[in-house]
Amino acid sequence: MYAVIMAGGKGTRFWPRSRQKRPKQLLNIVGRRSMLQQTVGRISSLLPLQNILVVAGEDHGQEVRDQLTDLLKENIILEPVGRNTAACIGLAALLVHHRDPEAVMVVLPADHLITEENLFLGALRAAVAMARRQEALITLGIRPTAPKTGYGYVEAGEGVGTAQDHVFYQVTSFHEKPDQERAEQYLKMGNFYWNSGMFVWQAKVILEGIQRYLPTLYADLQKLNGFDDYYQLNTEIARIYPDLESVSIDYGVMEKANNVLMLPADFGWNDLGTWASMVEIWPKDDQHNIHQGELIALDSRRNVVYSERRLCVLLGVEDLIVVDTEDALLVCPVGRAQDVGQILDKMKQRGMEQYL
Amino acid sequence: MYAVIMAGGKGTRFWPRSRQKRPKQLLNIVGRRSMLQQTVGRISSLLPLQNILVVAGEDHGQEVRDQLTDLLKENIILEPVGRNTAACIGLAALLVHHRDPEAVMVVLPADHLITEENLFLGALRAAVAMARRQEALITLGIRPTAPKTGYGYVEAGEGVGTAQDHVFYQVTSFHEKPDQERAEQYLKMGNFYWNSGMFVWQAKVILEGIQRYLPTLYADLQKLNGFDDYYQLNTEIARIYPDLESVSIDYGVMEKANNVLMLPADFGWNDLGTWASMVEIWPKDDQHNIHQGELIALDSRRNVVYSERRLCVLLGVEDLIVVDTEDALLVCPVGRAQDVGQILDKMKQRGMEQYL
Repeated sequence: MYAVIMAGGKGTRFWPRSRQKRPKQLLNIVGRRSMLQQTVGRISSLLPLQNILVVAGEDHGQEVRDQLTDLLKENIILEPVGRNTAACIGLAALLVHHRDPEAVMVVLPADHLITEENLFLGALRAAVAMARRQEALITLGIRPTAPKTGYGYVEAGEGVGTAQDHVFYQVTSFHEKPDQERAEQYLKMGNFYWNSGMFVWQAKVILEGIQRYLPTLYADLQKLNGFDDYYQLNTEIARIYPDLESVSIDYGVMEKANNVLMLPADFGWNDLGTWASMVEIWPKDDQHNIHQGELIALDSRRNVVYSERRLCVLLGVEDLIVVDTEDALLVCPVGRAQDVGQILDKMKQRGMEQYL
Repeated sequence: MYAVIMAGGKGTRFWPRSRQKRPKQLLNIVGRRSMLQQTVGRISSLLPLQNILVVAGEDHGQEVRDQLTDLLKENIILEPVGRNTAACIGLAALLVHHRDPEAVMVVLPADHLITEENLFLGALRAAVAMARRQEALITLGIRPTAPKTGYGYVEAGEGVGTAQDHVFYQVTSFHEKPDQERAEQYLKMGNFYWNSGMFVWQAKVILEGIQRYLPTLYADLQKLNGFDDYYQLNTEIARIYPDLESVSIDYGVMEKANNVLMLPADFGWNDLGTWASMVEIWPKDDQHNIHQGELIALDSRRNVVYSERRLCVLLGVEDLIVVDTEDALLVCPVGRAQDVGQILDKMKQRGMEQYL
């Protein structure tokens, strides 16, 4: 059993806390350790450290190594450029398959929050058992608790079997992020789940999926076969990566494959997509303000405040996000949290690289 | 001719820029020099420096001396506690009268903005000429340009004479800060002026007014007569000041006296009462945002931003005040600017003295 942790995210929507050099997964957004450290720590009770691979951006190589000092250097794979999840997962599957052709691999994003660790580990164990038994692509679906428009949805069909008391379902179809009305329908349906981006499968099964549905990507990745030496391998990755097809594993393989199963799960999951996610994470005061750092709030309700070193004072404001860092300050309504990335485009236009 | 500059204000509504140790008049809110320095500089073309008196709070003595190095030490009068304008003006009038029983004195707040300096000096010259000629209490009324609820109003009656081509009017009555409806009536009336808090009179005439309408204050101030030595005088001020009657010169004398004249003036005056005043002062961008410091504004309109060192980014917000200083950050709607002082009460309750 192997785990592949995808740590290539840019996390631009957590600006100004997240920066190009320090995206969300490398920050301690929740808790004392970084999201990446928490992700590795969480999985490490299931398998030995030498079976944990982390795929990250080349720019973050040093930081990732510094954060994961227990990890083998060879297990940190650096992408010279981001090429979406299919390339990342294909590369990792190739490496895992090379080490053990029969390996089951768990794929986990590095920047998600999970509060119920035991439930999470139980679900993974069940999925691994199922993946050993059956040549399936297993996705973890999160039981929705609200009509969220920020998540993709997975529609479950018939139950097809159990492993360790967990029931697995056929997947009828994948659905893009819905509008509000549709999200409410999905919630009512009962068989729609949030697409968590967490997968379990045999390395060889996902490689077969990529070979079948993304043959060009598969062929390009084959160029990496035969490089046992870490430095040679990295040199070759750096050479081929920029030309790889950039497509998500969902769109490129999962939506097309017919051996896809879903395991419903309910372990306090949050993808921490934007500052607005903090509404569900941080504790609230009696006016429903949530904050990290010193806050005085007068006649102010439902605000999200992150202030590193300064006292933040709110007077008569509602539903605002206020993020105060050493060199930059953001103020925006909670309802605009998903647009924070637009700020970075604006700064690029103006040549304000120091703030990116 | 003497000038008395009242620099005792606390300026709590400019928090977090203004602090107990550095109220508004000691800050360079507009321009490079402090409001106090600008006030002294503006008047100094009319009279010699040794005829300019500054009355300030004891806490600010060193800062005032540092800012006004050209001023005679003896001309900086320190109040151990604030006792409103009647005590301040009475004290100053006593000192001026002691130096020259025939002196005309100009009373100016230290924290007001005046953009048309020549018009201002012309008005003062005329008022001084009138005050020499007539035993009147002259107040400068500002021709209103909008139905402001933040100012008191002076109602002008009959014209009673001219000096240097300026017409002076009898004052019919003084009016407290009005509500919106009343402010609009006042604006339409045409003979209502903003009460600027600037006065011109003979020292002996205002002392007579205080003697008549505030006899207790007058009697208490008489205890200061006879102290020629600066240190003795200050010791005596420190002794008697806490027990002085605390009342404004408007309420205590001007509203009751029958020798009050008003000089209408129009010299780009603003009392800089709150952060919202900045809407009329600082330049606007094409989205009507006004700012000091680096700002990026996306879908954001009519905001007032002061940011000392940090980049401030606004996304999707309107009519907000954002003030960012080294240790504290304020966010409030423009419409709540007058309530910023409430924050200080809250901080006192919580024992957060370091931010006051």
